[in-house]
Amino acid sequence: MATLCRPEVAVPENIVTMADTLKMAEQLHAGKPQLRLAMRLISSTGVQKRHIVQPLEQTLEHHGFESRNKIYEAEAKHRVPPVIRKALEHAELTAQDIDAIIYVSCTGFMMPAMTAWLVNAMGFRHDTRQIPIAQLGCAAGAAAISRAHDFCVAHPGSNVLIVACEFCSLCYQPPDDDVGSLLSDGLFGDAVGAVVVRGSGGKGIRLERNAAYLIPNTEDWISYLVKETGFHFRLDKRVPGTMKPLAPVLRELVERHGWDVGSLDFYIIHAGGPRILNDLCKYLGVPQESFRYSRATLTEYGNIASVVVLDSIGRLFADNHVHDGGHGVIAGFGPGITAEMAVGSWRA
Amino acid sequence: MATLCRPEVAVPENIVTMADTLKMAEQLHAGKPQLRLAMRLISSTGVQKRHIVQPLEQTLEHHGFESRNKIYEAEAKHRVPPVIRKALEHAELTAQDIDAIIYVSCTGFMMPAMTAWLVNAMGFRHDTRQIPIAQLGCAAGAAAISRAHDFCVAHPGSNVLIVACEFCSLCYQPPDDDVGSLLSDGLFGDAVGAVVVRGSGGKGIRLERNAAYLIPNTEDWISYLVKETGFHFRLDKRVPGTMKPLAPVLRELVERHGWDVGSLDFYIIHAGGPRILNDLCKYLGVPQESFRYSRATLTEYGNIASVVVLDSIGRLFADNHVHDGGHGVIAGFGPGITAEMAVGSWRA
Repeated sequence: MATLCRPEVAVPENIVTMADTLKMAEQLHAGKPQLRLAMRLISSTGVQKRHIVQPLEQTLEHHGFESRNKIYEAEAKHRVPPVIRKALEHAELTAQDIDAIIYVSCTGFMMPAMTAWLVNAMGFRHDTRQIPIAQLGCAAGAAAISRAHDFCVAHPGSNVLIVACEFCSLCYQPPDDDVGSLLSDGLFGDAVGAVVVRGSGGKGIRLERNAAYLIPNTEDWISYLVKETGFHFRLDKRVPGTMKPLAPVLRELVERHGWDVGSLDFYIIHAGGPRILNDLCKYLGVPQESFRYSRATLTEYGNIASVVVLDSIGRLFADNHVHDGGHGVIAGFGPGITAEMAVGSWRA
Repeated sequence: MATLCRPEVAVPENIVTMADTLKMAEQLHAGKPQLRLAMRLISSTGVQKRHIVQPLEQTLEHHGFESRNKIYEAEAKHRVPPVIRKALEHAELTAQDIDAIIYVSCTGFMMPAMTAWLVNAMGFRHDTRQIPIAQLGCAAGAAAISRAHDFCVAHPGSNVLIVACEFCSLCYQPPDDDVGSLLSDGLFGDAVGAVVVRGSGGKGIRLERNAAYLIPNTEDWISYLVKETGFHFRLDKRVPGTMKPLAPVLRELVERHGWDVGSLDFYIIHAGGPRILNDLCKYLGVPQESFRYSRATLTEYGNIASVVVLDSIGRLFADNHVHDGGHGVIAGFGPGITAEMAVGSWRA
């Protein structure tokens, strides 16, 4: 029995509103033919504001990959510990109770991974397993939940801490001005999240089954170009249409579990963008309201990559409307194109 | 029951002998005070030759991180598939039988990870779980074995493919001339390896227990500096002394399993360097001969990072001297300083 407890999510203090984003895009890319389409796409994201680790002016400056990665490390060390402490409190555990740390992040690169620093700095046991995942992008939050579930089954009674740390603003690349980049510049936000999956006890989502799916031959639809200037995010225009092939996969997973995907009690869906959420609602035959947690994450924070699912789950906990035993699904989408999925029951 | 089947390992066709290495170091760093110590350290590595993906002259040129990473991707796509095909044959399985792919590599960075390309290019099922790990360095091979073991326990009857791909020569950084860098330039080699962990059936090592350990406050002893020029490997002079704190950890793990670490039937140890192997033999009270597989890997290929344990296990299979039910241990060491360990029995 693995139970996903209440997550904790924090966003940085620097706020960029949609108006700021549109103004910035106009100033930086005035006169370019692709700007008009990008402005229209940004306007329809529904992202009212985002939070970023540095003030906007500094974010727009690029002092090199080394400098960016140093900011990543310093900000992670500053912002992750308080979130972990709260997640441990929510799970009614201490650092000493944790058997594995899954750290997911695709917006900075450290070796050793942050897990080593966390063990030393926060009093985790020195036999804690470290599972750092840097290459699953936005799908990594849901992947971490599935791997934590697996770990708890493999090691009965153990507890797994998941940390998701995404500073997407540190991947802003000034010269990139294709439509996908301009849209991304208006879509992604920064956030850190943490949650404990308890192997026994705990209140929250009892994880019961997990699965993954790769849409054939879509490797280059979401990708990083790795350059001297760091990671350059590439977004293909076909990505918003991916819910058509993924909806049947999600439906089948839920059916295999004996449930009906159209009438679940909660839906935690990666808020990749507005069309992802709208399309998936349509294809699953559920009302738009069903995805309200994911929609709130997108509106208030933007696409915060692997942290989205944790933030949406946090809103599910805050809402506290699901009855004991209620059924739900968690789905993250990211590069691959990969879907990472889990089904579980609410345990009040 | 998870059984680690016979691994397959391949090394590139370009050979660098110890004589080549010493000549190269003398030419490139003539007159520098640190050269003499580095030459002595290289001479005592016992590394007779290494295999690298490009001819030596090209390896010494650095055309930028983007170029290096493109070479990584092309070489990985060229060299990994044949090794996987052989590993599947050894396990008497096909790509369709695989439920998860754990891909470990710290010498290039791709997003999506190589796992997505492998699924599309090699006929794996599209619901195969992808578990890419880039930040555990040399410990990642053993970590992958433990995570594969966990996956097979969590999903009974499933099979996990492990792929380790390390092109250390692509992290050669011409201006780095501290003693640690000069030594590394003479120690690391390139290799790719693959192995299947079968959830049922199969011949090889039955995985029975796994554990990890982080030596307190040693995060900066093995690390990457991430720069515009890519990953810069940093090696502290205290690293060769780490077997003193790790030997008791390994001993305790084996004792917890009811066995005596001094009298096991096989030892698969990360060949980080000669002193790692010599010291661990001494602290565990076993004859030098016990680590002959790891020593052969080091002599013939150098330190091939996460591939070392797979290659040493391959030599154990080729040697075929362990009796059915014989006891053994697998240990990988890497940045953190992290030890990833497993114990298991030989199943003929």
